[in-house]
Amino acid sequence: MKKENKNKPSKNLPLGFVDRQEKELLVRDFIISNIKEVMIKYGFQYLETPSFEYSDSIGKFLPDKERPDEGVFSFLDEKKWLSLRYDLTAPLARYVAKNYLEIPKPFKRYQLGTVWRNEKPGPGRFREFLQFDADFVGTRSLQADAELCVMISEILEKCGLAKSEYVIKISSRKITEELFKKINLENNEQKLTILRALDKIDRLGWTAVKQLLGKGRKDQSGDFTKGANLSLTNIEIIEKELKKNTPESEDLKEILKIFNDYNLWNFKFDPSIIRGLEYYTGPIFEVNLIDEVKNDKGKAIQFGSIGGGGRYDNLVNNFGNFEAPATGISIGLDRLVYALMQKKDFKIKQFKPVVICVFDKNSMRDYIKLLTAIRDAGISAEIYPGESKLKKQMEYANKIKSPAVILFGENEIKSGKITLRDLNSGNEKSIEIKELINEIKKII
Amino acid sequence: MKKENKNKPSKNLPLGFVDRQEKELLVRDFIISNIKEVMIKYGFQYLETPSFEYSDSIGKFLPDKERPDEGVFSFLDEKKWLSLRYDLTAPLARYVAKNYLEIPKPFKRYQLGTVWRNEKPGPGRFREFLQFDADFVGTRSLQADAELCVMISEILEKCGLAKSEYVIKISSRKITEELFKKINLENNEQKLTILRALDKIDRLGWTAVKQLLGKGRKDQSGDFTKGANLSLTNIEIIEKELKKNTPESEDLKEILKIFNDYNLWNFKFDPSIIRGLEYYTGPIFEVNLIDEVKNDKGKAIQFGSIGGGGRYDNLVNNFGNFEAPATGISIGLDRLVYALMQKKDFKIKQFKPVVICVFDKNSMRDYIKLLTAIRDAGISAEIYPGESKLKKQMEYANKIKSPAVILFGENEIKSGKITLRDLNSGNEKSIEIKELINEIKKII
Repeated sequence: MKKENKNKPSKNLPLGFVDRQEKELLVRDFIISNIKEVMIKYGFQYLETPSFEYSDSIGKFLPDKERPDEGVFSFLDEKKWLSLRYDLTAPLARYVAKNYLEIPKPFKRYQLGTVWRNEKPGPGRFREFLQFDADFVGTRSLQADAELCVMISEILEKCGLAKSEYVIKISSRKITEELFKKINLENNEQKLTILRALDKIDRLGWTAVKQLLGKGRKDQSGDFTKGANLSLTNIEIIEKELKKNTPESEDLKEILKIFNDYNLWNFKFDPSIIRGLEYYTGPIFEVNLIDEVKNDKGKAIQFGSIGGGGRYDNLVNNFGNFEAPATGISIGLDRLVYALMQKKDFKIKQFKPVVICVFDKNSMRDYIKLLTAIRDAGISAEIYPGESKLKKQMEYANKIKSPAVILFGENEIKSGKITLRDLNSGNEKSIEIKELINEIKKII
Repeated sequence: MKKENKNKPSKNLPLGFVDRQEKELLVRDFIISNIKEVMIKYGFQYLETPSFEYSDSIGKFLPDKERPDEGVFSFLDEKKWLSLRYDLTAPLARYVAKNYLEIPKPFKRYQLGTVWRNEKPGPGRFREFLQFDADFVGTRSLQADAELCVMISEILEKCGLAKSEYVIKISSRKITEELFKKINLENNEQKLTILRALDKIDRLGWTAVKQLLGKGRKDQSGDFTKGANLSLTNIEIIEKELKKNTPESEDLKEILKIFNDYNLWNFKFDPSIIRGLEYYTGPIFEVNLIDEVKNDKGKAIQFGSIGGGGRYDNLVNNFGNFEAPATGISIGLDRLVYALMQKKDFKIKQFKPVVICVFDKNSMRDYIKLLTAIRDAGISAEIYPGESKLKKQMEYANKIKSPAVILFGENEIKSGKITLRDLNSGNEKSIEIKELINEIKKII
């Protein structure tokens, strides 16, 4: 017995991967169809790059440099390494470089696609995400950056979020660059350590982040993270600058003016947002849900960021000498799906079939006639798909949340009438065949 | 110079992977939305399993046993191997085993998803496919098998194929099982070699297949494939049986009766279809497009199979002692997309934005007002997203196939009128702002 078990394959999923059920998928489809409508309206081209790229095409722009080799899923293929994409921006840069002569300039495209992160498995740490990205490539116009925020705002509201339920935080990488100049910092590694520390303000708060800017920090588990070794004076300069409420950089002033022209007002200047990625060169934005959501255990948690983006003027240049300044935004669809599902007033319609019970295989022809008539009326329906007794068939209909069952057995065939049972009320009705469609419509 | 090039990442894609453009993606969306409508109508549940599974969960049911280790993309994760799914059936079997107590019985689900095959790279050999699968699990009723064919037929016709453009070929694994008994064959390896040979009748013809059933065959490239070593008598028994025109097996007789009740007539009994997979146990079907399509070089090719399926009563049993006889069907969406795009009378609407030209950054407020008005009317529009001279802006508008540009420069602001240029006819019109939407609608 034990030996037999040993030979059986695992029924479980690897950590970080999940099966997704109908309701979640329908909410996701609803979001995706809103996105596509907005993308057409805004004139973005629809594009899809494949899951795999050569590792060297995308490997140099890994978002989380803390674990560069472990961050992606890679294979050795013939003599070169392939990697599953970890975002949609690096493949876009490759696409632009590959097709530079053919694409319109500027180039506006959007993509919907799965991305993979080979994170260390752990509770709540997913390794597969569905992402939406929209980018402008080949433009320095800040109208582009501003319009990305307007566009995201339109998508979220189409999905049913009120202006009071989200905020777009904006800042600029120019602010931290100015800061680095002010404190005479030139070492790129140290700059990254600082950006990574600042990126944690929201999650850890200023006290912890100041430790990370200084000597370092021991977390609750006892793990020690090395700091950026800045002096107290420099840490205070940074803190003061990042707590400002009005932007002083020219790029943000212009963006705010464009927001005003678009009548976009639910944004917030927040110089403490950093967006971890080292390739940003100008304005950066983050989309935050501000409603409290409940976690699996019913505990209220601040939902936080569902995406963001910014300007990256030098990314495509990694492939050669291309004039391709760019700006883009990403939304994590799984997180947005989760947020919408938590909303009390959000509903999504799930259609469940009316079940025609099987009394006698020899009557299949009659069942199929009924079935076809119901389906032709645009109503979801099925003949019970198994070979069980009526009791099992009723259990099945209840299990799949069918709105009604149709009984067409010996008695019904004799009387020429059909029995329709409403599974919500439990009421049964004996009706003429020609009344069937109308009676079903009253129920569903 | 040479050294610099060496350090630049590759702009190319690995073999077997492609970028997909808007038109193709819109056709795919059109197919997917038809599939989803039919799935609701037929009462299938929407489900999604992840890209990765433990290799042992799906590895034993690899469709092409000729290259078992090379057929999938796998990673060693912690101490266990993970694989990217190579189809949607093996993950379904795992899902059913994992959730056996909770799922309705029978269980009807559909899934849309990418699958990966780690094929040896070569021209026209893709390594990533989008697939649609629908399955019944937990039923022996042949009504289920029959309905899968009816359902596929409805999907194809909703997508615009005429009954004359496709055929559903059906057979039964029972036919080959009977044949094996007749020629006293019990060796499983040899059975598989025979099935694999028979699977090539369509592509290679009977002469070549008879060599594969016998001593073996040398192909045009000179490669020799070992044969199944059957005697000439046995090969002739097989050929005779597989050239029959009417089914003698009980399961097919019943299915044909149900087809008749559904009024499905564009099917064909064809005992030569095999569907390579060793896990089939009963009826098998293959969906074939019978129109000739043109390849990239304009040469007419028979399109052939875009999918198929069959009954697999023992697959879930690999995970333990589950009562889960099943039947299912798959369609390769990329192939169906390609087939539809080849059809002369098939059209898909691509929306391209009206472009508002930028004369002066200081007029951005006016451009945004026009833009918002046009978008609010449900029309795709954009402000030229760069910072170039008018000539470049016109080149851009033509490049993206914009239907029209709006010129609102110094002269226009003075006169209070807008210039609208139709990019198809080249005609220009000077119009009042309040007429703008109506005039655009006449053009697009």
